[in-house]
Amino acid sequence: MSLESIKYKRGSLEVLDQLLLPLQTRYVKVDGVEDGWKVINKMQVRGAPAIAIVGCLSLAVELLKDNSSDKKIMRQEIEGKLNYLVSARPTAVNIKLAADELINLANTLCAGENVSPTEFKDRFISNIENMLTKDIEDNKAIGRHGCEVILKRLEGDGLVRILTHCNTGSLATAGYGTALGVTRALHESKRLEHVYCTETRPYNQGARLTAYELVHEKIPATLIVDSMVSALMRTRKITAVVVGADRVAANGDTANKIGTYQIAIVAKYHEVPFYVAAPLTSIDMSLTSGEKIKIEERPDREMTHIGEHRIAAPGINCWNPSFDVTPASLITGIITEKGVFAPNKLAEVIPQYQNKCSTN
Amino acid sequence: MSLESIKYKRGSLEVLDQLLLPLQTRYVKVDGVEDGWKVINKMQVRGAPAIAIVGCLSLAVELLKDNSSDKKIMRQEIEGKLNYLVSARPTAVNIKLAADELINLANTLCAGENVSPTEFKDRFISNIENMLTKDIEDNKAIGRHGCEVILKRLEGDGLVRILTHCNTGSLATAGYGTALGVTRALHESKRLEHVYCTETRPYNQGARLTAYELVHEKIPATLIVDSMVSALMRTRKITAVVVGADRVAANGDTANKIGTYQIAIVAKYHEVPFYVAAPLTSIDMSLTSGEKIKIEERPDREMTHIGEHRIAAPGINCWNPSFDVTPASLITGIITEKGVFAPNKLAEVIPQYQNKCSTN
Repeated sequence: MSLESIKYKRGSLEVLDQLLLPLQTRYVKVDGVEDGWKVINKMQVRGAPAIAIVGCLSLAVELLKDNSSDKKIMRQEIEGKLNYLVSARPTAVNIKLAADELINLANTLCAGENVSPTEFKDRFISNIENMLTKDIEDNKAIGRHGCEVILKRLEGDGLVRILTHCNTGSLATAGYGTALGVTRALHESKRLEHVYCTETRPYNQGARLTAYELVHEKIPATLIVDSMVSALMRTRKITAVVVGADRVAANGDTANKIGTYQIAIVAKYHEVPFYVAAPLTSIDMSLTSGEKIKIEERPDREMTHIGEHRIAAPGINCWNPSFDVTPASLITGIITEKGVFAPNKLAEVIPQYQNKCSTN
Repeated sequence: MSLESIKYKRGSLEVLDQLLLPLQTRYVKVDGVEDGWKVINKMQVRGAPAIAIVGCLSLAVELLKDNSSDKKIMRQEIEGKLNYLVSARPTAVNIKLAADELINLANTLCAGENVSPTEFKDRFISNIENMLTKDIEDNKAIGRHGCEVILKRLEGDGLVRILTHCNTGSLATAGYGTALGVTRALHESKRLEHVYCTETRPYNQGARLTAYELVHEKIPATLIVDSMVSALMRTRKITAVVVGADRVAANGDTANKIGTYQIAIVAKYHEVPFYVAAPLTSIDMSLTSGEKIKIEERPDREMTHIGEHRIAAPGINCWNPSFDVTPASLITGIITEKGVFAPNKLAEVIPQYQNKCSTN
């Protein structure tokens, strides 16, 4: 069964500390938004969907303890706390979108003459809780659509070999996963021969987290270092690459973990289809292209050290962008919970879904 | 001044212990062939040219102390000791070739009626000493040719930004280096704006050794992880990529450290020229193409651990090829000590030089 990275019951939240993986499996208690900010900022929880859910759930936990009976104060506090949570990881769009929707909801509930403070709180918390179940449902739908589009490329009932990057599994979402969810769905359909995962330097999410999930679930898998992707494609036939997304622009350009762009280029060179798997909430129609996406740069220490162990020469400068942008021209399709779309079709098809959908 | 990894004066040899880099700079005294065998076998010295030179110099040091006046015994001892040195790293081809030539020389000197035992020893030791100076001269010639071909691409007297991979500097050769020698030559000509080096997973030769050399010589440099190459080329204009070679086939296909092939693909995509810098001794005209090159696979542990520290999930399979082959079609030029050649011209131009050159 897939790993439980977020344990939530009303009033109580614990997250699996991903910094300690794969060597230790320990949960951290999150008692309110300050704890929520910390686990996101320290990357004890990571992955754009998981960040949004944990951030919002930390607010739900905090609200439940709040005895305020003034709706206006509650509304004001909610807005301030959500903005604070968004500041913990600026590139992830999902938490920003979720925050905007929750602020709208708070405004509506606050203005509603028949809504008591207790009802305000209850409806607001329920709304956040629904995000958790909806994320898993959406991931499973992404898995189904991805599985289908990849199998369609095969003749007969052959098996597939997938390459993935970073961690997009249960540990990055509320459960199941996006790109790793597609891999999971292929495995469940008994059509997966093998999955290759990159170690994903400098933070090693692939070696630590994806490999951990794959071993945990006994999915046939092999770890490679990031620079082996081309050699792999040259020597072993890869059916498709499937990666996640931190943010997809309206034209299909996709910001994802550093190294994604490089994999997309070498996939094109080797004529391997390259898919991005992401929920609709990762698609930011307000951004016309990837050039508008702000790329977070992380501390040198992530590159120069492993734990306390220095691995790079003292005194060397580092450049450590956390993400890169893959141009739409290198992307075969974007796998969402509503189906698989060519990048240049997003502007046409996505607005109808996004107008209908809400955060929960 | 370039880092001195091999300190030699007649009768005295010290080598920089590369196992302690980058954290400690300590030289190991090499008092004879037994010490020579140990520093090579333990990988305190690495890089095919450096291994050959250190092995042979350790013999020179030992011979000087030898008071034998019997040429036949000297010849016999030389042959035995060279074969012993070759056994320290049986896959390194340069030391084997050097040993074969030195055994031929000992045979000739032994058979020479007018050669006294003292003259035998002196000429034999001088011959070994010449390897050291010849390797540095060849590297400097590679540097000059590389510098020239790269500067030719610029308009006016602009500055260049170079990307390199793995370690090809003073630490891998007798001094100066091949691809890093080109970078050094550009720096000495005051035409280098910046050099970017990849960390070069899984053995981190870039982060540990290249970064160490660059910091030591105050060459403006930045470390990136292997998967950042594409993002770097997209956001900062790179003038050229320069890498080394373990072996170049007659058609220009080049085996080099894993990841080189990937860099060549992304360089092509971004229209960045891609050069291989290698001495003529690395060009193997007996191999018709890169497909004939056998790729060594190294232990999983290099990928799963840093020292004693485990960085990958326990139980995950690994694939760890040490090299990959870059097809000639992705290579702009091969920079040798005799000039820069298009890969498809090697068969035409190289044989004339190789027939003339010898190891020392």
